[in-house]
Amino acid sequence: MKRILLSNRARFTPTSPIRKLAKYANQAKEKGVKVYHFNIGQPDIASPSVFYNAMKEYTEPVIAYEDSRGNKTLRRTWANYLNTNYNLDLTEDNFIISMGASEALLFIFMSCCDPGDEVIVFDPTYANYISFGAESGVDLIPVLSDLENNFTLPSKEEIEKKITNRTRAILLCNPNNPTGTVYDENDIKFLLNICEEYNFFLVVDEAYREYVYDSIKPKCALEIDKDNPRIIIIDSLSKRYSLCGARLGALITKNQDVLSTVLHIAQARLCAPTIEQYAAAKTIEQLPISYLEKIRKEYQERRDVLYDAICQVQGITAYKPEGAFYMTVQFPIDNVEDFAIYLLTQFSYENKTSFIAPGAGFYMQNGKGNNKARLAYCINKDDIKDGIFVLQKGLEAYKNR
Amino acid sequence: MKRILLSNRARFTPTSPIRKLAKYANQAKEKGVKVYHFNIGQPDIASPSVFYNAMKEYTEPVIAYEDSRGNKTLRRTWANYLNTNYNLDLTEDNFIISMGASEALLFIFMSCCDPGDEVIVFDPTYANYISFGAESGVDLIPVLSDLENNFTLPSKEEIEKKITNRTRAILLCNPNNPTGTVYDENDIKFLLNICEEYNFFLVVDEAYREYVYDSIKPKCALEIDKDNPRIIIIDSLSKRYSLCGARLGALITKNQDVLSTVLHIAQARLCAPTIEQYAAAKTIEQLPISYLEKIRKEYQERRDVLYDAICQVQGITAYKPEGAFYMTVQFPIDNVEDFAIYLLTQFSYENKTSFIAPGAGFYMQNGKGNNKARLAYCINKDDIKDGIFVLQKGLEAYKNR
Repeated sequence: MKRILLSNRARFTPTSPIRKLAKYANQAKEKGVKVYHFNIGQPDIASPSVFYNAMKEYTEPVIAYEDSRGNKTLRRTWANYLNTNYNLDLTEDNFIISMGASEALLFIFMSCCDPGDEVIVFDPTYANYISFGAESGVDLIPVLSDLENNFTLPSKEEIEKKITNRTRAILLCNPNNPTGTVYDENDIKFLLNICEEYNFFLVVDEAYREYVYDSIKPKCALEIDKDNPRIIIIDSLSKRYSLCGARLGALITKNQDVLSTVLHIAQARLCAPTIEQYAAAKTIEQLPISYLEKIRKEYQERRDVLYDAICQVQGITAYKPEGAFYMTVQFPIDNVEDFAIYLLTQFSYENKTSFIAPGAGFYMQNGKGNNKARLAYCINKDDIKDGIFVLQKGLEAYKNR
Repeated sequence: MKRILLSNRARFTPTSPIRKLAKYANQAKEKGVKVYHFNIGQPDIASPSVFYNAMKEYTEPVIAYEDSRGNKTLRRTWANYLNTNYNLDLTEDNFIISMGASEALLFIFMSCCDPGDEVIVFDPTYANYISFGAESGVDLIPVLSDLENNFTLPSKEEIEKKITNRTRAILLCNPNNPTGTVYDENDIKFLLNICEEYNFFLVVDEAYREYVYDSIKPKCALEIDKDNPRIIIIDSLSKRYSLCGARLGALITKNQDVLSTVLHIAQARLCAPTIEQYAAAKTIEQLPISYLEKIRKEYQERRDVLYDAICQVQGITAYKPEGAFYMTVQFPIDNVEDFAIYLLTQFSYENKTSFIAPGAGFYMQNGKGNNKARLAYCINKDDIKDGIFVLQKGLEAYKNR
C-alpha cells in the first residue's frame, strides 16, 4: 500500500524527554530493579482530602458541559485567592479555565500567533513548549541562559538580537522548569519593558509560583503592573495541590481582546472537566495557606538534600535552585541520554537505579543540553539521598565501562 | 497604547452557533421567561450511577498524571465494548484517550495535516470542525449535502471536484450532527473507495453511533474493513452515557503511524482527566447494553414527537432523521439568526420561548444555512411539543411584525 501522508508538524513534535525513556524504566522494574524517579515532576504529596470530598458530594444528576470559560465559582475563588495573596484585583472575567496549563499555553500560541510568528523563550526551556510550538506552527526562538550564570536572564542586547517583526511574545516560566530559577521583580520589569518597547506580550507560566524557598516571597507577574494588558499569566492547580490528574489550569489576563479571542477556541473544545472544577473551587476556598507552607518546607528540605548529595558527585556542576522542584545539572560526560539509558538498562547497584531526564530535550539549541540532565525532587528525602548515591555509582561504572 | 497583535486564526475561529446566542437566552430567563433549549446537544438523561460510584471509590492518595495514551483498563474495556458489539478485534494499543471527541479531532488535524492541507467535509457540518480547522490551519473543503435529498452523500463526481494534492482526509460525522442522517455500509464503502483511490484517510466521528432509530443497527466504520489503516474512528462517551462534562473521547485506528504521531502531541498535553478515566472504565464494563436500548427508545420517541410537531408548522421543511438527536430544518424566512434572536429578545408566548441554533454556523458555504436551524431534542417530549408550538407562534408573530 502507498504510504498515507502524515504531517511534518507531528513529526517535528519532539518525544517528551520526560517520558521517552519510560519503557526502559518499565523493563528495569520488570526485572525487579527499584527505580528512583528523578525524571518526572509528579508530586508524591497526597492530594487534598477536601478535593476528594467535594467530588463525592457532587449531586447534579447529569454531568453536563460546564461554561467554556470555566465554572464561575471556580473562576471567582481563584481570583480571590490571587487577590488576597498577591494584592491583585482580578474578577472571574479575567479567567479562562483550561485543561491544565498545557491547554492554556496552546490557547495563547493559537490566539496570539499565526503560523510563522515567533515567541522568545529562554534555553533551557520546558520541553512541552517546544511541542506546543511545533503543533501550532509557532517558531520558538531560544535565548540562552547559562548554568554558569545560575540561569539568570540574558542581557537586553542578547534578547534584542532575536526580536523580529514576527515576534509576538516573550514566554517565561517562573519559577523555572527545568532549572528551578526564580526570577524576581526586577527580572519581570526588565522583560516587561522590552515587551512594551517592541509591542508584544509577556506570558508568564506560574505553575510553580508557590514553590519558592529560603526567604523568597511568591510573586505573580501581575503584581508589577496589575492592569497591564500585555501580561498573560498561565496558572495551574497541578503542582500546587498535587492535582496533576485533575487537568485544571487557567489563562489569566486583564486583556479583554485576548480573553474574547481565546474564548472562540475554548468554545470549540467545549469545556474543562465539570466535576473537577466544582471540587477545585471548594479546594481553593477551604485550604488554608498553611497547607502550602508545609509543602513548601518539605520541597525546600528535599532541594537541600538533593543539592548536598549532588555536590558530592565528582564532576557534576550544579546550581542551587530557589524554586519549583527541578534542578538542571551538568555531567562530566558528552552524552547524558546514553548514560540515562545505561542506568536503566545495563546498570544497577544493590538492585537499584536512577531515572534522570536527559537535558537535550529541554534545549532548543542543538548540543547545549547533551551533557546535562533535569532532576526532579518529587520523591522523599531518603530516596533522593540513596538515588543520588546510586547515580554516583552508575556514573563511575559508566566511565569505566 | 498601540494595539497588540492577535492572530488571524483566532479571529477566523467562528463563534459557536450553539453558544453565541446564550446571552440572550440568559436575559430572557432573567425576565422570568421559560426557555426551551433546542439549541444544544446536552443530554438531560441522568449520568449512570456506576460512574458516580466509581468516582467515589477512587482511593489513590495522589491524583496523578495518567498515561498519555489513556488509562490502560479504560482502553481495554472500550476495545472490548467495540469488539463485542461490532465484531472488531481492537486492543488497547489501537486507542488514544482524548479530552472529549474535540481533542481527538484536533489530534487528527494536527497529525495528518500541515497548515494549508485540506480535509473534505459535508455541508452542513458540525460547527466545531470549522473551528478546529481554523485553529490548526487546515482548510476544510465543503461538499454540499442537500436537505432536499435528505442529506444523503453527494456523488463521487461532486466529491472528486474538491480533491486536490493537498487533500489529506474525508471527515464524516455518522450519525450526523447537525442533520441526524445515518450513513449505511454502502455509504462508508463509497467514501472508503475514494480514500483508497486518492490515498488519504477516512475519519469517521461516531460520537452518536448508538443513537440510530427504527430498525437500524448501529455500525462502526471499521466493520467494513477492520484492519484498514486508512480508517480513523473518533469516539466519545459524552452522548452515549450522558457524560459531556467528563471530557472523555478516543481516537481509534489500526494505523500505528497515526497512533505514534498522535502520541507525540498527546504527551505534550500530558493526559486526560485521571479519575474520570478510572470511572469510565467501570461504567463501560458494568453497564448492560439494555441501558443504551432504553435511552435509544426515549430519543426515538422524542424524534417522532419533534418531527410530528415540526410538520404542523406551516412553511417549515424538514427531513425525518434516523439518528443522533438533531434535525436541520428550513424556515420560510431569509435570516433565521435574526429570528432566533427575536425569539429570545422580543417574543414570548404565555411567558415561554424557544432557543434554536441558527443554521448559518453549520454551513461553510455562505448563505446556504441562513434559512435553516439545527434543533436538538435533548429535552422531554412535553417540552418538545410545547416548545415547537411556541416556536410556531413566534414564527407567525415574526412574519407579522
